[in-house]
Amino acid sequence: MHFASDTTSPAHPSVIEALARANTGYLGSYGADPIMDEVRARVRDVFEAPEAAVYLVTTGSIANALSLATFCPPWGAVYCHRHAHIETDECGAPEFYTGGAKLVLIDGENGKMDPENLRDALANPVTPDVHLVQRGMVSITNVTEFGTVYTPAEIAKLTGIAREYDLPVHLDGARFANAIVASGASPADMTWRAGVDVLSFGGTKNGLMGVEAVVIFDPDRAWEFELRRKRGGHLMSKHRFLSAQMRAYLADDLWQGLARNANEMGGRLAQGIAASQSAALKFPTDANMVFANWPRGIHRTAQSAGAVYGIWPFDQPLQGPDEEVLSARLVCSWSTTEKDVDEFLNLL
Amino acid sequence: MHFASDTTSPAHPSVIEALARANTGYLGSYGADPIMDEVRARVRDVFEAPEAAVYLVTTGSIANALSLATFCPPWGAVYCHRHAHIETDECGAPEFYTGGAKLVLIDGENGKMDPENLRDALANPVTPDVHLVQRGMVSITNVTEFGTVYTPAEIAKLTGIAREYDLPVHLDGARFANAIVASGASPADMTWRAGVDVLSFGGTKNGLMGVEAVVIFDPDRAWEFELRRKRGGHLMSKHRFLSAQMRAYLADDLWQGLARNANEMGGRLAQGIAASQSAALKFPTDANMVFANWPRGIHRTAQSAGAVYGIWPFDQPLQGPDEEVLSARLVCSWSTTEKDVDEFLNLL
Amino acid sequence: MHFASDTTSPAHPSVIEALARANTGYLGSYGADPIMDEVRARVRDVFEAPEAAVYLVTTGSIANALSLATFCPPWGAVYCHRHAHIETDECGAPEFYTGGAKLVLIDGENGKMDPENLRDALANPVTPDVHLVQRGMVSITNVTEFGTVYTPAEIAKLTGIAREYDLPVHLDGARFANAIVASGASPADMTWRAGVDVLSFGGTKNGLMGVEAVVIFDPDRAWEFELRRKRGGHLMSKHRFLSAQMRAYLADDLWQGLARNANEMGGRLAQGIAASQSAALKFPTDANMVFANWPRGIHRTAQSAGAVYGIWPFDQPLQGPDEEVLSARLVCSWSTTEKDVDEFLNLL
Amino acid sequence: MHFASDTTSPAHPSVIEALARANTGYLGSYGADPIMDEVRARVRDVFEAPEAAVYLVTTGSIANALSLATFCPPWGAVYCHRHAHIETDECGAPEFYTGGAKLVLIDGENGKMDPENLRDALANPVTPDVHLVQRGMVSITNVTEFGTVYTPAEIAKLTGIAREYDLPVHLDGARFANAIVASGASPADMTWRAGVDVLSFGGTKNGLMGVEAVVIFDPDRAWEFELRRKRGGHLMSKHRFLSAQMRAYLADDLWQGLARNANEMGGRLAQGIAASQSAALKFPTDANMVFANWPRGIHRTAQSAGAVYGIWPFDQPLQGPDEEVLSARLVCSWSTTEKDVDEFLNLL
Repeated sequence: MHFASDTTSPAHPSVIEALARANTGYLGSYGADPIMDEVRARVRDVFEAPEAAVYLVTTGSIANALSLATFCPPWGAVYCHRHAHIETDECGAPEFYTGGAKLVLIDGENGKMDPENLRDALANPVTPDVHLVQRGMVSITNVTEFGTVYTPAEIAKLTGIAREYDLPVHLDGARFANAIVASGASPADMTWRAGVDVLSFGGTKNGLMGVEAVVIFDPDRAWEFELRRKRGGHLMSKHRFLSAQMRAYLADDLWQGLARNANEMGGRLAQGIAASQSAALKFPTDANMVFANWPRGIHRTAQSAGAVYGIWPFDQPLQGPDEEVLSARLVCSWSTTEKDVDEFLNLL
Repeated sequence: MHFASDTTSPAHPSVIEALARANTGYLGSYGADPIMDEVRARVRDVFEAPEAAVYLVTTGSIANALSLATFCPPWGAVYCHRHAHIETDECGAPEFYTGGAKLVLIDGENGKMDPENLRDALANPVTPDVHLVQRGMVSITNVTEFGTVYTPAEIAKLTGIAREYDLPVHLDGARFANAIVASGASPADMTWRAGVDVLSFGGTKNGLMGVEAVVIFDPDRAWEFELRRKRGGHLMSKHRFLSAQMRAYLADDLWQGLARNANEMGGRLAQGIAASQSAALKFPTDANMVFANWPRGIHRTAQSAGAVYGIWPFDQPLQGPDEEVLSARLVCSWSTTEKDVDEFLNLL
Repeated sequence: MHFASDTTSPAHPSVIEALARANTGYLGSYGADPIMDEVRARVRDVFEAPEAAVYLVTTGSIANALSLATFCPPWGAVYCHRHAHIETDECGAPEFYTGGAKLVLIDGENGKMDPENLRDALANPVTPDVHLVQRGMVSITNVTEFGTVYTPAEIAKLTGIAREYDLPVHLDGARFANAIVASGASPADMTWRAGVDVLSFGGTKNGLMGVEAVVIFDPDRAWEFELRRKRGGHLMSKHRFLSAQMRAYLADDLWQGLARNANEMGGRLAQGIAASQSAALKFPTDANMVFANWPRGIHRTAQSAGAVYGIWPFDQPLQGPDEEVLSARLVCSWSTTEKDVDEFLNLL
Repeated sequence: MHFASDTTSPAHPSVIEALARANTGYLGSYGADPIMDEVRARVRDVFEAPEAAVYLVTTGSIANALSLATFCPPWGAVYCHRHAHIETDECGAPEFYTGGAKLVLIDGENGKMDPENLRDALANPVTPDVHLVQRGMVSITNVTEFGTVYTPAEIAKLTGIAREYDLPVHLDGARFANAIVASGASPADMTWRAGVDVLSFGGTKNGLMGVEAVVIFDPDRAWEFELRRKRGGHLMSKHRFLSAQMRAYLADDLWQGLARNANEMGGRLAQGIAASQSAALKFPTDANMVFANWPRGIHRTAQSAGAVYGIWPFDQPLQGPDEEVLSARLVCSWSTTEKDVDEFLNLL
């Protein structure tokens, strides 16, 4: 009954096997390994983007921060949802890497930026004004931090507004696989065809040890990205071990298979909660994350029975009046089982 | 006959096994895994430093950059050897992480800072002067970039000069294991007892997939280090996979065993070159790196026969007059064999 | 009828005379002029703060940015009003100088931070969490950007909340003289006695050519401030010309006299508007800035009759339906006359 | 007998008069004053550069730092003389504004970069290499920090080498007027016709209170410059007072007249020293700065007789053996008189 995060899961066994297979002989370092050539080709294939630049890094935060820094100047505003990961969970990495860009927070229900709010934020100022931070870029998260999933059409609506101001668009896809499985959209439809310029394509939360790809659809900025990655200390010397993980992830659509399990378990959990009398869903459960409300007393019971999950936001403490309603954040992963879910539901 | 770098080697097989063993069940993320508790205790034990703060990161560049940024203000000067890795191979990561500190380059033979040169550089200005970058910290590399090894006494001489100005000292130990094996010194004698405040303790070049520890002997700065690591995008979520590598590295002194082989192969190579009529050593070979001179014609022959190594500096091209003398940079690793070395020597 | 900004006014004639008087012979540069010694003593006297460090710079933005950077780390959050100058008018200077700190926007009526909103923002997270930007400092503006004035008690309420978290407090006093005159409080009561650690003490908007003082009540950070000022390119070589302006400003309480006129003209303007049938005040007019609403048609009439002022926010254009109500931002200065005000009121 | 620096001089009286004349009525702020339009036109005329972008700032350090930051990326190397002002006197402002670029120091006699040394520094690495700081830009100082003056041909030689690598070139002209007068070259010949892209055109050391122009010959980067200036806190609100100074400076070639006096006094001083038996010139005296050697005993005598100047480098103390030879740095300004010079020479 472990639902604390998809990052507390192990890696998929095939990933470890892939590392073992890659661990023979001498190979070019710093990305010059032939496995990376395969990965690059495979990613381009998956995204139907034969020109895309593809890079591997070890954390989602850095995939995001380097993407932002490559496309947004220090005096730029990054428009993102008020609860975007880049705003709330990265200790200011975007500000650090961009050299001090400003995150402008856009509200919207269920973790999705409201297009009208984005439009309003972009509409002013009416003229170039040196006193203001300039419009820089837009960053969208899919799956959102609240577990909802944008459709390609919803993404395109936001990127269309960005395009009116010639702004580039970043997609934080730490849970991109879950969004693809949930929406049934193709990777191309969810990204460049919907107006996305650069994607953080997550692997770590979905069965890898620690690899994220950055996919830059317009390769003009690729060399700058490489310099920023190196300068950030993020160019791995024994790069083959990142490549091997990503190759395994993409082989036989493993990435989608793992996400499918996570999403199915998320759905099962949500369904059980919705049917319960003591609990209520807080947001729609589109993928593998469930937010739900129930009284503190039940939290206490569940956690003492071994359920592991966060009380949202900020890991609120269990002390306090029994009847006060607190929100649970429950995350399923590739390794969550029906048994886990059902045992948990029984506790409620 | 692969001597291009210790980073083109595979990982030691026990490292992959360690990952497989760590890959079961749910574990706390972001460094809250119990394996890290073991690693911390073991590092403290190895360094006889029960209070030391211990952190894991994935590259040597970031181990260095975070160490510098934590101890040197943006307006500080970092005194290092003209050929230090932080100056020549990190694309300005130290400048980026410190917020623009200045590296002041100290000359000295065989890749070692000359104490008198360090003293001279520190001696001016004679008064605090707001127009100048201020004295910030000293960074020493052991094994040096030229393959030589400082003794603890040599380190203490440099740190003693730094102490006259109350400057903290960083040791770049990307090849720390090789320095320990070469010198026979204890880790404590080579570091805090010799006046070192913070150490980059390398693993990647010596048999790991991609893990370096940072050891901060005075833990007062530990929390700042953690914030800088997170902000740099370097806090791994599935941290257990770093911990597991480092645990394996320290178990049964594997780290010293691997370095011993690398150093022995370095010595064997140097001996053979010294005995050759066509070649001459460029620097003393104290550990696993050999720098030697021979004519371009022989470089051409060796490389076409399958020898892989760099022509130093900056991978000079093989085109040009046969008789011109060029320098080879040959690096042995944990996986270099006597056969590799002897085959190569036969080519000369 | 010029109400565009207090920065479009000339300097007070005595300031030019002061420059002329200071322009004789050789004087120490970079702050070593004896006039600065007088200024430092006089500022300490005015603020009843014999230990305070006092520095001069040329713009309000840099007074603010250096103050923030000296007291808030790169990973800190600066809590300020949503419409604070540091958020809306400095093109990200605070982010640049702090190395990427994050401005957290606090709402509150009439341009004042609501203490409860500040308390809520500070209350979470409940534990130290490396994923989050850390609590850094609080920045208050007096006179606010909406022309209202905090009393010392209101300031103390906010600083008291900051103190619960050991946060330092900055006061942006670009219009500090106007706030002092409006409130009748002493400079000490408005600043350090109310819990302020560092003050931007404006002169430019109130009759100087371009000088602001920074007053650091706890001088421990003074040297760091000096280094940051120099590094920002803000240490003037012929510093005597800043000192001379500030000396003239403080002599015979000129600063308060000039602010008194500006405030009185602001009051006269507000009274006239309040009495008008076509217009309504938007915020209370505590000092020299008046915000008021009236229909676009009247804006058009007034501006074509020669009135100069901004249509707030962001200089909205005059095109559009006549009856739509738009806000005017009218700023009086030391040089505004009753005639200016009355002519303007006649236009309404 | 004041030769400490050209920044200890007063401003020329006509500058104060110009301020007084500009101090009437309301004028657009932040550079929108009509005086700036005149200045822009006049600078373009002086430089025969009708497209040039022209900006005013208050210190030489910021003119340099903004110029570098606008043309050199954070991962770039700035090639400059080992004794360039940007390296030795700005507390790391270039590193701060560029976001961590690296200054690469080029040696050369008499304060001038040796073209062959520049060529060598640029020649390596032979291929793009992500591990290295990239070639960024070249910065030349004229008058040099040692008082020598490059001819346009010498400048063109350096810029030609820069052009082989498509590098932009900055000219630090804190004493540009002195260089023009000394060389007899036209401003255009000394700058864009010689391959300079951006110029710091100094006024402060030559009779202004505190104004430097930045002249960007290719205006494509102008908007970025404006944003960086604002973000650095360097956009003056009452900008008319910078404009008025610069207008006065350019009127009737005042700037050249003032520099002519400074240079003539420098020459007179140098001639007297060269003729003396106790002293010897250290560098050729091309403009207004004289470096010369004589024994400490004479320094002591001169300074106790009222001569004010620096003992170079770093204001060495007067204590020590009488016969030890120390270097004097003597700077003449627009206000130095023959009497000052002759009195000083009598002391030797």
